[in-house]
Amino acid sequence: MDTTISSLGTREFISPLHHRGGVDVTFKQDDERVLFDHRMSPGEVPQPKLSFEVAGARERIYFNPAKTTAGIVTCGGLCPGLNDIIRGIVTQLHLRYGVSRTYGFRYGYEGLMPKYGHTPMPLKPESVSQIHSFGGTILGTSRGVQNVAEMVEFMEELKCDILFVVGGDGTLRGAEALTKEIARRGLKKAVVGIPKTIDNDIMYLDKSFGFETAFGVAVEAVKCAHSEALGSKNGVGLVKLMGRDSGFIASYAALAGSNVDFVLIPEVPFALDGARGLLEALRYRLAKHKSAVIVVAEGAGQQFFETAGEDDPARDKTVNRKFGDIGIFLKNRINAFFEERNMECNLKYIDPSYMIRSVPANAADNFYCSQLAQHAVHAAMSGKTGMLVGRWHGAFIHLPIPLATQGRRKVDPQSELWHSVLESTGQPARLE
Amino acid sequence: MDTTISSLGTREFISPLHHRGGVDVTFKQDDERVLFDHRMSPGEVPQPKLSFEVAGARERIYFNPAKTTAGIVTCGGLCPGLNDIIRGIVTQLHLRYGVSRTYGFRYGYEGLMPKYGHTPMPLKPESVSQIHSFGGTILGTSRGVQNVAEMVEFMEELKCDILFVVGGDGTLRGAEALTKEIARRGLKKAVVGIPKTIDNDIMYLDKSFGFETAFGVAVEAVKCAHSEALGSKNGVGLVKLMGRDSGFIASYAALAGSNVDFVLIPEVPFALDGARGLLEALRYRLAKHKSAVIVVAEGAGQQFFETAGEDDPARDKTVNRKFGDIGIFLKNRINAFFEERNMECNLKYIDPSYMIRSVPANAADNFYCSQLAQHAVHAAMSGKTGMLVGRWHGAFIHLPIPLATQGRRKVDPQSELWHSVLESTGQPARLE
Amino acid sequence: MDTTISSLGTREFISPLHHRGGVDVTFKQDDERVLFDHRMSPGEVPQPKLSFEVAGARERIYFNPAKTTAGIVTCGGLCPGLNDIIRGIVTQLHLRYGVSRTYGFRYGYEGLMPKYGHTPMPLKPESVSQIHSFGGTILGTSRGVQNVAEMVEFMEELKCDILFVVGGDGTLRGAEALTKEIARRGLKKAVVGIPKTIDNDIMYLDKSFGFETAFGVAVEAVKCAHSEALGSKNGVGLVKLMGRDSGFIASYAALAGSNVDFVLIPEVPFALDGARGLLEALRYRLAKHKSAVIVVAEGAGQQFFETAGEDDPARDKTVNRKFGDIGIFLKNRINAFFEERNMECNLKYIDPSYMIRSVPANAADNFYCSQLAQHAVHAAMSGKTGMLVGRWHGAFIHLPIPLATQGRRKVDPQSELWHSVLESTGQPARLE
Amino acid sequence: MDTTISSLGTREFISPLHHRGGVDVTFKQDDERVLFDHRMSPGEVPQPKLSFEVAGARERIYFNPAKTTAGIVTCGGLCPGLNDIIRGIVTQLHLRYGVSRTYGFRYGYEGLMPKYGHTPMPLKPESVSQIHSFGGTILGTSRGVQNVAEMVEFMEELKCDILFVVGGDGTLRGAEALTKEIARRGLKKAVVGIPKTIDNDIMYLDKSFGFETAFGVAVEAVKCAHSEALGSKNGVGLVKLMGRDSGFIASYAALAGSNVDFVLIPEVPFALDGARGLLEALRYRLAKHKSAVIVVAEGAGQQFFETAGEDDPARDKTVNRKFGDIGIFLKNRINAFFEERNMECNLKYIDPSYMIRSVPANAADNFYCSQLAQHAVHAAMSGKTGMLVGRWHGAFIHLPIPLATQGRRKVDPQSELWHSVLESTGQPARLE
Repeated sequence: MDTTISSLGTREFISPLHHRGGVDVTFKQDDERVLFDHRMSPGEVPQPKLSFEVAGARERIYFNPAKTTAGIVTCGGLCPGLNDIIRGIVTQLHLRYGVSRTYGFRYGYEGLMPKYGHTPMPLKPESVSQIHSFGGTILGTSRGVQNVAEMVEFMEELKCDILFVVGGDGTLRGAEALTKEIARRGLKKAVVGIPKTIDNDIMYLDKSFGFETAFGVAVEAVKCAHSEALGSKNGVGLVKLMGRDSGFIASYAALAGSNVDFVLIPEVPFALDGARGLLEALRYRLAKHKSAVIVVAEGAGQQFFETAGEDDPARDKTVNRKFGDIGIFLKNRINAFFEERNMECNLKYIDPSYMIRSVPANAADNFYCSQLAQHAVHAAMSGKTGMLVGRWHGAFIHLPIPLATQGRRKVDPQSELWHSVLESTGQPARLE
Repeated sequence: MDTTISSLGTREFISPLHHRGGVDVTFKQDDERVLFDHRMSPGEVPQPKLSFEVAGARERIYFNPAKTTAGIVTCGGLCPGLNDIIRGIVTQLHLRYGVSRTYGFRYGYEGLMPKYGHTPMPLKPESVSQIHSFGGTILGTSRGVQNVAEMVEFMEELKCDILFVVGGDGTLRGAEALTKEIARRGLKKAVVGIPKTIDNDIMYLDKSFGFETAFGVAVEAVKCAHSEALGSKNGVGLVKLMGRDSGFIASYAALAGSNVDFVLIPEVPFALDGARGLLEALRYRLAKHKSAVIVVAEGAGQQFFETAGEDDPARDKTVNRKFGDIGIFLKNRINAFFEERNMECNLKYIDPSYMIRSVPANAADNFYCSQLAQHAVHAAMSGKTGMLVGRWHGAFIHLPIPLATQGRRKVDPQSELWHSVLESTGQPARLE
Repeated sequence: MDTTISSLGTREFISPLHHRGGVDVTFKQDDERVLFDHRMSPGEVPQPKLSFEVAGARERIYFNPAKTTAGIVTCGGLCPGLNDIIRGIVTQLHLRYGVSRTYGFRYGYEGLMPKYGHTPMPLKPESVSQIHSFGGTILGTSRGVQNVAEMVEFMEELKCDILFVVGGDGTLRGAEALTKEIARRGLKKAVVGIPKTIDNDIMYLDKSFGFETAFGVAVEAVKCAHSEALGSKNGVGLVKLMGRDSGFIASYAALAGSNVDFVLIPEVPFALDGARGLLEALRYRLAKHKSAVIVVAEGAGQQFFETAGEDDPARDKTVNRKFGDIGIFLKNRINAFFEERNMECNLKYIDPSYMIRSVPANAADNFYCSQLAQHAVHAAMSGKTGMLVGRWHGAFIHLPIPLATQGRRKVDPQSELWHSVLESTGQPARLE
Repeated sequence: MDTTISSLGTREFISPLHHRGGVDVTFKQDDERVLFDHRMSPGEVPQPKLSFEVAGARERIYFNPAKTTAGIVTCGGLCPGLNDIIRGIVTQLHLRYGVSRTYGFRYGYEGLMPKYGHTPMPLKPESVSQIHSFGGTILGTSRGVQNVAEMVEFMEELKCDILFVVGGDGTLRGAEALTKEIARRGLKKAVVGIPKTIDNDIMYLDKSFGFETAFGVAVEAVKCAHSEALGSKNGVGLVKLMGRDSGFIASYAALAGSNVDFVLIPEVPFALDGARGLLEALRYRLAKHKSAVIVVAEGAGQQFFETAGEDDPARDKTVNRKFGDIGIFLKNRINAFFEERNMECNLKYIDPSYMIRSVPANAADNFYCSQLAQHAVHAAMSGKTGMLVGRWHGAFIHLPIPLATQGRRKVDPQSELWHSVLESTGQPARLE
């Protein structure tokens, strides 16, 4: 696993952070590292270990602040904190480094393609001072990567030296391609990524920005489902939450004291039918307690859709991969199951969908995003490129882009997290 | 319009509110009235007008507090404030009137039918002191009316003298039937209703409890739709809100400064196609502003479903009347419209559904519900029956049940309210 | 009581609201009235009664929209909804009437005095579209009235035809003086007020804008006090709330289910000492329940300060009238009382102060403020002057300024409201 | 630094977590460690390093669940999440380990002293299922330690095998004394602590529970101060936040985008007077921007009180150490400064005080507290004693009590955190 961070070259300039009213900041060295594994196995002989470069201000920097132009692009789906990141980058660049030209590219990578005709938005500390009060992103986003050569040419045209890219896997792979094209042309431009995923499933990162905010809204939805379940005889509150590949939001919501009885996630397959399937387990639960709350991550139970034809209306056509709508599917199957048995069952289905991702960031995410933005600016100014900033075990670090995009973090069914979910819900360990 | 309130008979007891630490409450008289119409037409010759009996404590009461047993039943869909009403009735009965036996009947009218085997829940001030912190109803609800004779017999068995009924149209008609059956048998039991509808569409009432809370959540959903709309090129945020027969929630949400561009309500028909239809208007809006927010009340545009067969999956089978899902319908039609024209359109559909009705009441509804509960208890203790408590032009009043259930309040397309919506959205007055 | 509304003269112009896409708004006539008293006494002979002019759009208007300039000034303390009012006036003027020049005067009446050098802020729908997301007022405020002649001259200089004044008693008396000076000079300028008081104590008005929002924050503070009181042995949570002359916020907070044990308001005097004073009542409550919550309106118990000298640090020097700080006073007296008796008492004092008034308006106040703004614009455009817009028994009306500023609404100790407080708290009716 | 964890003895029982529906949990070994320092210095020769015992379920446990009795005590000031901790411990004990007897001791250590007559409260999963919806602690708290011998005897009397202690420094030192007394008597009882401090200043811990919730409320208070500051000419919003020894809450609030201009914390001394003091800096700020927001941690500037006499009313008499009220002090000094210079200054002082600590925990703290509770139960059941559970660099660990109570974490004035504060506020690095 290569954790080496690329750099544009010799750092000729002294950081303007050097003297601030006579108080020195503690600069970081490139050879300061954070261990990948901070656990120590029994009887272990200490030896050099995998580690990540530490993030933070460098004493010498690559770009001359007075002559530097930066740009920001936000890609993919909305996530709480995007505006905080934009605000943080702009204020850090202007107020700490004295970089006064920052462009916001509109609508994701489209904004870097002249053919779409989106004029870049000049960003100043004053123009972004209150944007963190709103959800979404003032720049807009789009999905997909554009022509890499044309994007680099547009950066050249604008004399844009630094590009901050905020987005998920595909976006970051695009940032990697941009970095390579820039290098191929012998240009001196830094590309710095800030990984975004509302599902908290990025490899080698503690948590993704916006996750706490999103999870907080999810908990509110689950509380509503609980009220609905208690509100009618054999009431079932069914909530679909985000999580295409991982069940973090669903698991966290169950552990936040939300009185959940079943959590269904992509990492743990489940059967519907049969003596040990979900439907019988639900029947048992209703017989005993008269109500039940089910939380399902949108990526759970996708095996049920494998035979579904392209024309199945339960299929979601708007995303890369085809996903069946597990929420609607479960709603119909549960209702049918109890109807067949002539048992009363009052199912209320809640799909908070975009409400979870388009709210403004909460205070914790405000703070976290401002830190991410800060470290992204430090990295870019020192000439780092083709890398991401993130937090690992509480420390801010630099990661090569390919490392983070090679896979996704999952809920481990053997982990304490999933076992806690099993115990707090009381659901069978296997629904099969 | 008969506004006479029925009464069980002579009031033999002096209200225990009479002397409270030597401070008299201002008792109300039955002949104090509140005018139905408090506007005065030009040049009008004053004459006796339609009016409602004023609510409030009476100096003499019908029931002997020491020997009285009361019951509460909550029916129909959830609504913010149900627990506040329960709490308010119990504390008012116990602490102000000294009535110490109050039952909570479980799951709507089912709780009054022995055959379901739901044991009534004894309610005390201590057991309800914190229930207003939660959404839903601690009693549970169900839809539909049960056998009136059996319910009255069960009340007799429990020696239940007063029944407080919280629910919508159907529920209140059930309460009217109970009243008649009780009278037919020559029993002395009071039935007092508190009308519930999250849509704010009850006749002769200022506002329904829970409406402000619900509308507040709706505004949050609309804000999310706005963030989504701004977040992508030609972004459309589409929100479906409650309102089967009336567009109050949708109209209020648009006027609360939520940046809405189109409001579609049941009272105002609209066309989709044609030069003046919604789809062309939306195309025009996107061309001009690059984003749009549409709020649709669930009862809007039902004409589009009239030809749909019973098997149409867009039809909602869980409710009395068949409703087509206008949200899903619009989402599909808008997407198809722009696909046909090969125009980009990023529609995000938000259906907050039950999240709007199962949250706890906000402070204003906490207060309003405690007042409604208080007046319901005053009415019942003084022997009023077959009536409702409500607020009209700011004054609490008594209404005969049939008056309130004979129709529903609507948004008047000629009204200042709807004109304000038109202006604040900028939508065409007619989409036809 | 004179309820006649002054007018600038003949209305020469047809309202641009007349035809909006072929849909007529329902215009109001000046002789449509809303009764002051909508209760009807028993056996009453109907006769002409006091009434208010109804608010709303007029078919003919006084000002020519194309040539009209308007201004807005916000005065006195902050109140939730000020930005909503500003936003509502600007959008109503521009979008409905086509008045494109609106100035925001800075820092209250100072902004109308050239000598302070505050440049008026041009206001457009775009520049105010999101301001309701923030508390406070984008214009700033100040207290006190300035030189009336100079203000009128500055209005002349700016060709400002309409002045919207948002503020409390003093501010509105200033608006009255401006109206008279304008009339004296034979000018044709309309002055329209929107009364502001966070205490909900304006005469002849249902409720003041911002009150619900403020009361919601107050309830949060009281909940904290309750948690603190329960959290320690003999815990006392003491909360001071706004209300210099009236106890509405304190009373409402107690009735919103906040588990309050004592409410102290300006309208009901209380003694501290003696067998029936507050301190003994508190001791009794603690002996019985081990915790207590006290809510005190800031204007309560002012008799305790009458002998206090000017130098007493408990005196608040920042306001017109001298107020003793009843919160600090009670805290000290209660602590001393229990110390003297060697009894444990853990008092926690909470003073939310400005947090109650500087939050953004909630959804209900968003809506209410937009309606007030709308009616203020209708009134001004039709040439009404020296008047206020307000809501009376649910209907929007016009009030002559002097009527509203001649006194303040109070909590009536004989009222249902206060009796409900007594019962819900269980406090003695008289603490004397 | 000794990081060895004491243990009661051989673990004779197999964990009931072993087989849960045939799915094994991943048990932890006592010799699994988490490094104290996970950074790696340049050119470092790897060698054994300081580390902490990892927390989590053990395969073999010390206590026989069927015969074990546990108790919980909460001490010191309120903190968001106390009820979550209680709920988490009770449900973990009952549902995962099958320990069915758990007592809640009332009012801190007093509850362990028979002389106070507080009956321990039996706690069951059902009785605690909704307590996390409320702030405070259902057990109540008190300050100070009681007689250690008597407490141990009372535990013996109740056959209480495990005591969970939630509290701050003093409380934890009391837990250490209890552990020693238990050992001295040769008893087999486990004492497990969960450190509590709203200031986030515990040594060797990532963050304290409740901190995020508290900081979120602090941000709301700062937003109000900002609205007030903007709302008047030369407006100054002054907010006092918790933080007797450390400025974490104040610093975080400034970095969450709250538009703060000055942050004053205990770790960084500041002068009021002189050309480089706070007052001149404030005057400069007002001259330039017309408004300012100051956030002061309650422990800041205590040097100003060193000469103040015991009778100074600005001194807070309720806490261990004497603290001057820096908020009131600054308010008075700032007002005096501008009055002397005859400059207008409209200062609004906000002290949210207990409102920050007595709110219910937010979703992130709900989750974090449930994890802490879980790990505390794992530790206790395996016979660990005299130790704390906490999180270090994202991993849950065991800490000997003395390690955590030997000092407090501080904001390092050389750190990135403080420098970010300086830059985001723009305040001078030294106010001296």
